[in-house]
Amino acid sequence: MQLWNKGFEPDKMIESFTVGLDRELDLRLARYDVQGSMAHIRMLESIGLLEKSELDQLLPALQEIADSIERGEFVIEDGVEDVHSQVEFLLTAKLGDIGKKIHSGRSRNDQVLVDLKLFFRDELRRIADGVERLFNRLQSLSEEHRDKLMPGYTHLQVAMPSSFGLWFGAYAESLTDDMQMVVAAYNIANQNPLGSAAGYGSSFPLDREMTTELLGFANPHYNVVAAQMSRGKTERAVASAIAAVASTLGHLAMDVCMWMCNNFGFVKFPDELTTGSSIMPHKKNPDVFEIMRGKCNRLQSLPNELTILTANLPLGYNRDLQLMKDIVFPATTQLIECLDMADFMLAHIEVKEGILDDPRYDYIFTVEDVNRLVLQGVPFRDAYRQVGLSVQDGTYRPTREVHHTHLGSIGNPANGLIAEKMHGLLAQLK
Amino acid sequence: MQLWNKGFEPDKMIESFTVGLDRELDLRLARYDVQGSMAHIRMLESIGLLEKSELDQLLPALQEIADSIERGEFVIEDGVEDVHSQVEFLLTAKLGDIGKKIHSGRSRNDQVLVDLKLFFRDELRRIADGVERLFNRLQSLSEEHRDKLMPGYTHLQVAMPSSFGLWFGAYAESLTDDMQMVVAAYNIANQNPLGSAAGYGSSFPLDREMTTELLGFANPHYNVVAAQMSRGKTERAVASAIAAVASTLGHLAMDVCMWMCNNFGFVKFPDELTTGSSIMPHKKNPDVFEIMRGKCNRLQSLPNELTILTANLPLGYNRDLQLMKDIVFPATTQLIECLDMADFMLAHIEVKEGILDDPRYDYIFTVEDVNRLVLQGVPFRDAYRQVGLSVQDGTYRPTREVHHTHLGSIGNPANGLIAEKMHGLLAQLK
Amino acid sequence: MQLWNKGFEPDKMIESFTVGLDRELDLRLARYDVQGSMAHIRMLESIGLLEKSELDQLLPALQEIADSIERGEFVIEDGVEDVHSQVEFLLTAKLGDIGKKIHSGRSRNDQVLVDLKLFFRDELRRIADGVERLFNRLQSLSEEHRDKLMPGYTHLQVAMPSSFGLWFGAYAESLTDDMQMVVAAYNIANQNPLGSAAGYGSSFPLDREMTTELLGFANPHYNVVAAQMSRGKTERAVASAIAAVASTLGHLAMDVCMWMCNNFGFVKFPDELTTGSSIMPHKKNPDVFEIMRGKCNRLQSLPNELTILTANLPLGYNRDLQLMKDIVFPATTQLIECLDMADFMLAHIEVKEGILDDPRYDYIFTVEDVNRLVLQGVPFRDAYRQVGLSVQDGTYRPTREVHHTHLGSIGNPANGLIAEKMHGLLAQLK
Amino acid sequence: MQLWNKGFEPDKMIESFTVGLDRELDLRLARYDVQGSMAHIRMLESIGLLEKSELDQLLPALQEIADSIERGEFVIEDGVEDVHSQVEFLLTAKLGDIGKKIHSGRSRNDQVLVDLKLFFRDELRRIADGVERLFNRLQSLSEEHRDKLMPGYTHLQVAMPSSFGLWFGAYAESLTDDMQMVVAAYNIANQNPLGSAAGYGSSFPLDREMTTELLGFANPHYNVVAAQMSRGKTERAVASAIAAVASTLGHLAMDVCMWMCNNFGFVKFPDELTTGSSIMPHKKNPDVFEIMRGKCNRLQSLPNELTILTANLPLGYNRDLQLMKDIVFPATTQLIECLDMADFMLAHIEVKEGILDDPRYDYIFTVEDVNRLVLQGVPFRDAYRQVGLSVQDGTYRPTREVHHTHLGSIGNPANGLIAEKMHGLLAQLK
Repeated sequence: MQLWNKGFEPDKMIESFTVGLDRELDLRLARYDVQGSMAHIRMLESIGLLEKSELDQLLPALQEIADSIERGEFVIEDGVEDVHSQVEFLLTAKLGDIGKKIHSGRSRNDQVLVDLKLFFRDELRRIADGVERLFNRLQSLSEEHRDKLMPGYTHLQVAMPSSFGLWFGAYAESLTDDMQMVVAAYNIANQNPLGSAAGYGSSFPLDREMTTELLGFANPHYNVVAAQMSRGKTERAVASAIAAVASTLGHLAMDVCMWMCNNFGFVKFPDELTTGSSIMPHKKNPDVFEIMRGKCNRLQSLPNELTILTANLPLGYNRDLQLMKDIVFPATTQLIECLDMADFMLAHIEVKEGILDDPRYDYIFTVEDVNRLVLQGVPFRDAYRQVGLSVQDGTYRPTREVHHTHLGSIGNPANGLIAEKMHGLLAQLK
Repeated sequence: MQLWNKGFEPDKMIESFTVGLDRELDLRLARYDVQGSMAHIRMLESIGLLEKSELDQLLPALQEIADSIERGEFVIEDGVEDVHSQVEFLLTAKLGDIGKKIHSGRSRNDQVLVDLKLFFRDELRRIADGVERLFNRLQSLSEEHRDKLMPGYTHLQVAMPSSFGLWFGAYAESLTDDMQMVVAAYNIANQNPLGSAAGYGSSFPLDREMTTELLGFANPHYNVVAAQMSRGKTERAVASAIAAVASTLGHLAMDVCMWMCNNFGFVKFPDELTTGSSIMPHKKNPDVFEIMRGKCNRLQSLPNELTILTANLPLGYNRDLQLMKDIVFPATTQLIECLDMADFMLAHIEVKEGILDDPRYDYIFTVEDVNRLVLQGVPFRDAYRQVGLSVQDGTYRPTREVHHTHLGSIGNPANGLIAEKMHGLLAQLK
Repeated sequence: MQLWNKGFEPDKMIESFTVGLDRELDLRLARYDVQGSMAHIRMLESIGLLEKSELDQLLPALQEIADSIERGEFVIEDGVEDVHSQVEFLLTAKLGDIGKKIHSGRSRNDQVLVDLKLFFRDELRRIADGVERLFNRLQSLSEEHRDKLMPGYTHLQVAMPSSFGLWFGAYAESLTDDMQMVVAAYNIANQNPLGSAAGYGSSFPLDREMTTELLGFANPHYNVVAAQMSRGKTERAVASAIAAVASTLGHLAMDVCMWMCNNFGFVKFPDELTTGSSIMPHKKNPDVFEIMRGKCNRLQSLPNELTILTANLPLGYNRDLQLMKDIVFPATTQLIECLDMADFMLAHIEVKEGILDDPRYDYIFTVEDVNRLVLQGVPFRDAYRQVGLSVQDGTYRPTREVHHTHLGSIGNPANGLIAEKMHGLLAQLK
Repeated sequence: MQLWNKGFEPDKMIESFTVGLDRELDLRLARYDVQGSMAHIRMLESIGLLEKSELDQLLPALQEIADSIERGEFVIEDGVEDVHSQVEFLLTAKLGDIGKKIHSGRSRNDQVLVDLKLFFRDELRRIADGVERLFNRLQSLSEEHRDKLMPGYTHLQVAMPSSFGLWFGAYAESLTDDMQMVVAAYNIANQNPLGSAAGYGSSFPLDREMTTELLGFANPHYNVVAAQMSRGKTERAVASAIAAVASTLGHLAMDVCMWMCNNFGFVKFPDELTTGSSIMPHKKNPDVFEIMRGKCNRLQSLPNELTILTANLPLGYNRDLQLMKDIVFPATTQLIECLDMADFMLAHIEVKEGILDDPRYDYIFTVEDVNRLVLQGVPFRDAYRQVGLSVQDGTYRPTREVHHTHLGSIGNPANGLIAEKMHGLLAQLK
């Protein structure tokens, strides 16, 4: 049943070795494969490589497959190599020779490329949706806990007053930075490779602008060799976007694990969202955030894995590239799961109040006091020295007042402006 | 001479261990440090933290330092820890107490952050310039060698006809994809962290919108904690952009090394641009392209190095982050050198003509012949089988005609449209 | 059914998020878990924490579970968290309270650690077996094709005569270098963590030397904190060993893909071991070797993935570490599959004869001719210049004679000595 | 002055691009280059390729160069490409034609390989020395602070009693695991590539066993192609060993940064070994350990960087490999600096006493109390439930007694046995 079968049975062991997880992963491409084929045959008909009557048979047959995919009924049958073969097999079973004609002017190389581009475009949109949900959660927590102070650390040393409003809001704004990477990946994916065939184009007079429009791509990936070279490049861009978001989530998870540590105790979660220990009855472990941190760290390793896979490969399609599916396909799902889990958990976060009343944080107010002197006209370095001496000789007493007013500070977290920035970015994926 | 010196001499060994290459790397930040300080004091004056008369003394003094930097005369003196201290030292030496006042409402954390953002913005523009130069070279080579055919490979097996026009043009278009990453990094860098102080803002009523405008940033990095969190995130975005361009260059270098191999012989370079062997007198080695490939592969490892450096670090500034300078600063220079070297070498490339006349490439025309049958009405799969049989029984004779006309194909490489795409991207960095 | 269940139902979504693939992966640990438990209870009885009569009930019950595992009948039931809970559940179901007593003086942390150490020890032995099989294949091919010459390349330029004997033999010897890494990983794994409990030891008077002997470990991982710290360290060592072997295999696969390229044509395989193209009927693609190269490149990314996962984690067990199973468990299997596939494919490799008769390789003999002059007394640099000039003016004619005799050269590939080296290394894993 | 110069001046820009830092890095190879040459010419004389009288002139001349290297007077002159050329240039300047003869039967490829192997062997020994120094420090701190208790964490939650004796001792034992990787790298490096020439051997009857013995290698890297393939493999093994030690050091640094955090306060250092803040006069930052953590994390990225550099490279020497010097040479120095700095800092560490008297750590004693019940005959799971209930209803009162006696526990840290293990490993590098 392999399209390239030349009359002998390739060894089973080889097939299992080379096909690997592909059949399973390809199911996620099925809807895009049909979509690509429909655009392709419309175009073939427009340039006279299909009869109108053939198109009229093929389109409904493909639509029927599309429907079965949406209903979750589509399978890749045993002995069928991949999604492309399965679709063609179904068509030929139904329509005979006409089914075979859809492959004109196309290779499996540009067929899978167009599937992948359509798939990544959608996955990036789903990631953006997950980012938006978490962003909204973080912004609303920032507003809710806007005035609750907490210590701000540098070098893991108590440094200056901070607030839960700043902390939640910071992760929201950080996600806007990550969205720049999502947008870049989307723009790279949003180009039409169809018509590049095996990477060197076709002698048929294909109308690539027509398929570009039918599939809603921003433009053709013009040069056919460049279109093929985008295999790997697109995946790396998608993985870099995933890694960017994962890095933000991973740091958020690290913070939560730290703040849940008994020595900090800044945040906690209801018992049913923590886990216990088989030998220590008092433990309330932040397993969800540890697993989230771990998953996000794994996701951050993917761009590098793709780099090793593709570095120094010779020009043109090499089968190694197939393995990128194993790397990137599960990653989009995992990232969205992490985003959703973060959103779910943060809906239940409990924040400690009055943290800075503990005398252990007294020194956190030194900068405030230095600044107060400056506002009274003392040069900064002298004010610094004066407060420093009172710290050293033990006479320092904090005033415990925090009046920060500037844009982006404790008293003015700028969540509205940040939301505006985020919406501008999200709009680029519509 | 360290600003935080509290009256005892830190051990020399520790200083050398912690400062490392920083003094040297910081020289590249000097112009941006002065630029940031000038914006900062203009703002301080506007909110009443500096007298107009003080500003009028400070600005010319800073301009003098700026001029010495442009003349290449600025140095970080022995015993001075970094560029920020050196600038303040010069000011204080000249103006006394007034010099000390520029540090109000600022920490070294946001000072170095603003330096870095300004620096990366400029470096990304320089990278874009280098990309544009190479892009132009590749496009002009694509036009010059537009009709010279070469074999197209898949699986490193001779597959279909390609052309030097396609090959050069493909690398040009690939660079437009990489520019998406450059644009993303630029957008992440192009946000104003000034006013975030040590990462938790300030009790002074800083006007962050004013410094944003003075420094030409697109917007403030609003949330002060997010601003500090962008340390690391910005570097990773820059490194990802560098890695994207490096990947394209690395593959170009790999292709050239392959095509220069005696078994291909598709391209060559004048003797003075190749190197010889100490024991084999006939060798003409593609050392430049091997070193370029190697350098580009090293550059591709940087995002990962930054990931390891920053993963799981606690919230807030940690001194580890300083080491990112050692990673990213040389990288921008190396990438630009590789871009320029590629441009220089390609100016001298010699392309072999008539490659496909060699009978070893006869089978490359099978797809053309399959397609010819299809255009005569034979279903694709049957045409494929018919040509396949003639290959198997040795009767296949190629027609050696290549008429590709569609957008992006051998006969229609779409260089103009690709150039338009590139110019749209370059414009986003102005 | 979770051992730490404190009376409320943890959210299903959380369980699925945190448990992930663990139940499935844990099946590979089942036999080692029982083995560890048997040693542990023997020891408990020896120090009076179990009655002899209890031990006499527990041991046969555990043996029964062990038998069901070997028969492939053991499953981790729905709602049971991991292999450790399942084993304890079976015991308690059969023996009641006695079943609960096996957990004395042990935590899940050292329980899973001992499982992992035993598992890795066995997997490394299986890898060594696979290495040995491929090593033997390569050595026998080296002997079989000992005198068949091929070009040797440097800088991908034709350089000097080589031979298939050298090429096959080189990969065999390279595997001995990789075995050094396998031995290191084995030695790191081969230490007993049992008794370290949650990473801080136990107040019971455990006899760790007894369990060390019962489980055949070289020594205890003495310090209980160090024992826990070996989680991550052991995995990285195993992954580094896997990466070392994978690197050798990946390069072998790259060579084969190159030599199968029409422009080289040095080796080929029977048609049924290559694959075809959906649009190019003449293609015989080296898919197996491309997939092998790709898989081996992915395997080489694992040490880095583990590094990112574990870098900067706080001291003590963190749940992130669980995810290392997802990384390393499939990797041992994949490496062994690659080793076996390489062995299988090489059993069918066909080697081209008389390659160097092609005039394109004439210059390969220049070094031989330089050396001939040297043996006649001409200083090397002068001989080099003389031959070089004849190359430059086109008068060079090769003598086409290759007489290499020294140890490890074309005429003397030293396969016996290399085999000795390999056997010495393999013996360290017994 | 380049050995392969064929009469035209290669472009300066190319030379600078391709030579890079090589001249500077090569200085570290100089002593090994002379050592390799001395062994090579002794061997050449033994097989009749040098006269005894020539050898008698060459050896003292080489010894003179060796002496100048040890005195630090050796330089690679302007216009001389590398250390090999400089040494030959000095010889030829002194002895004329005889100087040229040392290159017989050798290529720069095996010349640099033997230099590298000798260099790595020595660097690994120096690393082992640094490891040993730190190991001794840690062991003595373990003994000194043997009975000082501290909390043991899992999931960053207070878990069980631990001690400074365990903590210091754990890092000591962890270093023994890393030494397994150092030993593996040493064994891979400790093989003689001399005689492999450009990677394909020589037609001269070289006596490779003689040079193996003269240079003190364990055995020849027999197969000449394998010898060349060890370029890259050796570097990766060295980098993996460096990464292993760096991982341990990095975690130690992370622990110290955590324990120095005001919320823990377990350890501190004299003021002169911490650093301050430019705006917060009370800060005592652990900069040394942050920089150490950062440097160690960078070192952990090196195996991956080497993997990307070498993956998929074609067989035979490629110039990319030269760039490995830039990666590995500084790394050995940096690791040793980190080891020495850790040793220096730990000599001044101050450890807090009585930490567990703070009621916040009361729950740490629950396991002790569970175990006490078990020793009284209560089944473990029941004892666990009983103590768990008293925790939940707030009636739990700790007994605050810690009696751990088993091997490797708080009361019995097994430092002597661990030292024995370390010495066995160190002995393998002599």
